[in-house]
Amino acid sequence: MDVAIIGAGAIGGYYGARLAHGGHTVHFLAHSEYDHLKAHGLRVDSVEGDFSIPANELHVYNDVVDMPPCDLVCVATKATANDDVLPILWPVMKPDGVLLVMQNGFGIEQQLAARHARVHIFSGLCFICAFREGPGHVRHTAYGAITLAPLNPDDQVRLGQLEHLLTAAGLEVSTQPDVVTARFRKLVWNIPFNGLSVVLDATTKDLAESPAADRLVRALMAEVVEAAAACGVTIDAGFIDEMAGSVAGMAEYSPSMRLDYLAHRPLEIDALYRNVAAYAKDHGYTMARTEQLADELDYLQARYLV
Amino acid sequence: MDVAIIGAGAIGGYYGARLAHGGHTVHFLAHSEYDHLKAHGLRVDSVEGDFSIPANELHVYNDVVDMPPCDLVCVATKATANDDVLPILWPVMKPDGVLLVMQNGFGIEQQLAARHARVHIFSGLCFICAFREGPGHVRHTAYGAITLAPLNPDDQVRLGQLEHLLTAAGLEVSTQPDVVTARFRKLVWNIPFNGLSVVLDATTKDLAESPAADRLVRALMAEVVEAAAACGVTIDAGFIDEMAGSVAGMAEYSPSMRLDYLAHRPLEIDALYRNVAAYAKDHGYTMARTEQLADELDYLQARYLV
Repeated sequence: MDVAIIGAGAIGGYYGARLAHGGHTVHFLAHSEYDHLKAHGLRVDSVEGDFSIPANELHVYNDVVDMPPCDLVCVATKATANDDVLPILWPVMKPDGVLLVMQNGFGIEQQLAARHARVHIFSGLCFICAFREGPGHVRHTAYGAITLAPLNPDDQVRLGQLEHLLTAAGLEVSTQPDVVTARFRKLVWNIPFNGLSVVLDATTKDLAESPAADRLVRALMAEVVEAAAACGVTIDAGFIDEMAGSVAGMAEYSPSMRLDYLAHRPLEIDALYRNVAAYAKDHGYTMARTEQLADELDYLQARYLV
Repeated sequence: MDVAIIGAGAIGGYYGARLAHGGHTVHFLAHSEYDHLKAHGLRVDSVEGDFSIPANELHVYNDVVDMPPCDLVCVATKATANDDVLPILWPVMKPDGVLLVMQNGFGIEQQLAARHARVHIFSGLCFICAFREGPGHVRHTAYGAITLAPLNPDDQVRLGQLEHLLTAAGLEVSTQPDVVTARFRKLVWNIPFNGLSVVLDATTKDLAESPAADRLVRALMAEVVEAAAACGVTIDAGFIDEMAGSVAGMAEYSPSMRLDYLAHRPLEIDALYRNVAAYAKDHGYTMARTEQLADELDYLQARYLV
């Protein structure tokens, strides 16, 4: 099966390498990583065992028009680049293919559906601690499961195929009935930990050890759960305990937004905060705490972005 | 008239010096400033003209038991020291005297009333840009008005006397009908600007120049106004524009909480945030944004306070 990976950072590099390792023909679209991948291949240092794909076995491209049409296209770029990335995916997609959105955030599948009506769109939410150690070099330190959800709830057959494909490549996979449910659940973790790691200049370990941070995390999580409820998505209260407690045993870890901030890259504020706040507001719920955190992030980002 | 000033920092130093300059006998209680004040007196560099009180004309004490009973006692210490300061004021107060609370925050007059039943308690809210340039040296850069309000609304005669006394010393004075109204109005400015100056590492000028900060400021101000309304205090919506706009023309200024933070002193989180949030909650209103800011401040403070 032909798989395209759009973006060869931590997420694209890790999952793409797993699929290639699992026997699929994987075509990577890369920009800043392109030259290094061409020359040296892709290296994954993983808690589950290190492996690499040598340069002569790696299919890597720096322009989407050079890529073959693929059965499965995984979008693993930063959501901040979506205005540039989403419109250029045509050449790599088979007409009846599957588009798997591995980005964080909210509302991305709907944006894609507006552009790519005939494609089957799924969320592929990555619960993983992984980061880019250097060019063509991913470090995977914990977790790694993917949650799949179809944008179109009728897409159950393809959902099963996708689940099988990823499981066969050695990945832990779960499913949710729809994209909105899956994304709300993921945001329960992402909204507090990504933003607070930037505003408070903290790793997950710093946050896990602070009673004040625990209050912040749980109050933000409760707001996401309330917003979800207003949008018709039920998340049981025990999920907050589970997500808030998830960092307790975790080694020192910087969420991707903190890495972006420290590297002075654009932050995924729209994808992680604004889109869901706007969606909740359309359903009559104001995410005041989430908006406040997003405004703080806007302020901090504006100090280095022009 | 005998006046006591408890605390010889920026606020106590400035207003105490004004009253001494206006002909009153002013007794300063100082701790860290004591030796310097004894030896060198008190210096005020003010936009309204510099002046100083030489050491031989300055009445300064390092223990409240050495102070004479006074007609007017102005509490100008940090609210973070209130557990230590409020219980020791007995020796300096005349039985029927006036206690003027010049601290920022909420609920302090009520705490004092529980201890000092026979004393007449007033808020004396200071709208001023002033800071401690060095030992015994206050710099006053803008504003300087005081808003008076009686804890007991029947205390109108003393309110008038106090207003006259401060006006005669050259100060701009206004009044509010009661302590709760006065303090809610002051918090409209203090809650956003103090906390955000710490969390975002920003001066008022930095905040004034940022659209994101303006959103944060106005949303927090709106929450204070809503909380006030829930507590029976009406603040007209135009007040938010006035307060949010107040920093636009202001020179670079660090609110006192930012100075405390940069000097690794305890932050006035209870006085400025927790007390009013608890009061509002008792009246059925949750100050979610204020609580979030307070929790962020708690986290940041805990990094240097043990």
